[in-house]
Amino acid sequence: MNTFKVIIEYDGTFFHGWQIQKKGERTVQDEVKKAIKMLLNQDITVFGSGRTDRGVHAAGQVAHFKTSINIDCDKFQYGLNAILPKDIVITNIKKVPKNFHAQYSVKTKTYRYIILNRKTRTVFSRNIMHHYPYPLDIKAMKKASELIVGTKDFRAFTATRRNPDHKKQTVRTIKKIEIKKSKNFITFDIEADGFLYKMARNIIGTLIFVGSGKISPESICHILKSKKRSLAGPTAPANGLQLLKVKY
Amino acid sequence: MNTFKVIIEYDGTFFHGWQIQKKGERTVQDEVKKAIKMLLNQDITVFGSGRTDRGVHAAGQVAHFKTSINIDCDKFQYGLNAILPKDIVITNIKKVPKNFHAQYSVKTKTYRYIILNRKTRTVFSRNIMHHYPYPLDIKAMKKASELIVGTKDFRAFTATRRNPDHKKQTVRTIKKIEIKKSKNFITFDIEADGFLYKMARNIIGTLIFVGSGKISPESICHILKSKKRSLAGPTAPANGLQLLKVKY
Repeated sequence: MNTFKVIIEYDGTFFHGWQIQKKGERTVQDEVKKAIKMLLNQDITVFGSGRTDRGVHAAGQVAHFKTSINIDCDKFQYGLNAILPKDIVITNIKKVPKNFHAQYSVKTKTYRYIILNRKTRTVFSRNIMHHYPYPLDIKAMKKASELIVGTKDFRAFTATRRNPDHKKQTVRTIKKIEIKKSKNFITFDIEADGFLYKMARNIIGTLIFVGSGKISPESICHILKSKKRSLAGPTAPANGLQLLKVKY
Repeated sequence: MNTFKVIIEYDGTFFHGWQIQKKGERTVQDEVKKAIKMLLNQDITVFGSGRTDRGVHAAGQVAHFKTSINIDCDKFQYGLNAILPKDIVITNIKKVPKNFHAQYSVKTKTYRYIILNRKTRTVFSRNIMHHYPYPLDIKAMKKASELIVGTKDFRAFTATRRNPDHKKQTVRTIKKIEIKKSKNFITFDIEADGFLYKMARNIIGTLIFVGSGKISPESICHILKSKKRSLAGPTAPANGLQLLKVKY
């Protein structure tokens, strides 16, 4: 058996997330699986690096599959992109060692969140950024982000209702949060060894709370210690978020 | 009566062009008219700078309307954007002299065409750029564009079938064609005193013919002189085109 690593870019707007759903909703994993099966004429399983929620995008989702066929990667990529829908594209495919696993071999993931920070919304790229029309204090958000970075218990930043991580270990290591402003666009890149359910969007929602002056940068410490979701900011909208990169 | 000038940005993907259609298809002019009527509670007419074809976008379409009401422009813009669909946004609105006419006062229009010039397509911004996967010779296209600029008969670059300009004057003045390459994106800005039906897309299609080596830059002169649509390149896809700016 050969193992192939695939890098996938998708616009999550019209998907019910990455993962195949029982009710048959349109998901990225299902579309990719169908396309590979069609080209190989062989049943396969596609393993992703992890879920992305409904409406969340990816510039660099990673998946792997195994097949007895020895694929010509370039031709296979070309073929897949010809049959995949316009909101999914394979940006790379290569043969990897047999023990590679898209989920279990992950070292870090980086999520990017983009905010259009000006009064008037835009129609272009409206699906891949969150429009926030009020002023945001970049310095305060950077200060707060420094207090988030590190190995910490992020229970306060994970979803409370039907929380799959409720009884799980909620300590994660955030390696880096980079906040950049260019013209009216604010980009947040968060790199961590793992993300709890809705953690990225809850961190962004809390940073927006800081940036708009609703809470101080220092209150991050209190929120983290409290482990209470109710103290953190609201979940930022899905459309601003994309899985940027998965490192192995 | 007061006259108001409106600048409109739209994603043309899901519109049957700018102009109101007899059959009631979804058009930008109709959506803008409905929104203004709703806010003013008054019947008005919206005059645009000109049509844009189905699937063509605008960053700076201009329109005007007249009303007896003395509008607070900022509040009115905010109100319009709240009720307009997500693929239309008003970027500016201001009171102008009574004799201003969005169509008849036009000095020049600039159309922008964007090509993503790399092997693999992208999902992001897929609706506002044309994916062209083969190499393009920028120098050759620039050379050809210099031969297009000027006051010339552009009959060869206007649509042949059901051509509304067939018996019309087909001389236009192209002031400028700017071609820029940045990473994998090629941007063409064409400024002219007016554009014949499908002229911008036919020029781009012909420049792509030059860039891909199918015809020489010099053959532009022959095409122009021939006045034959059949000698020019194919009409470039609508999704790469946007009305960038209208000057008055």
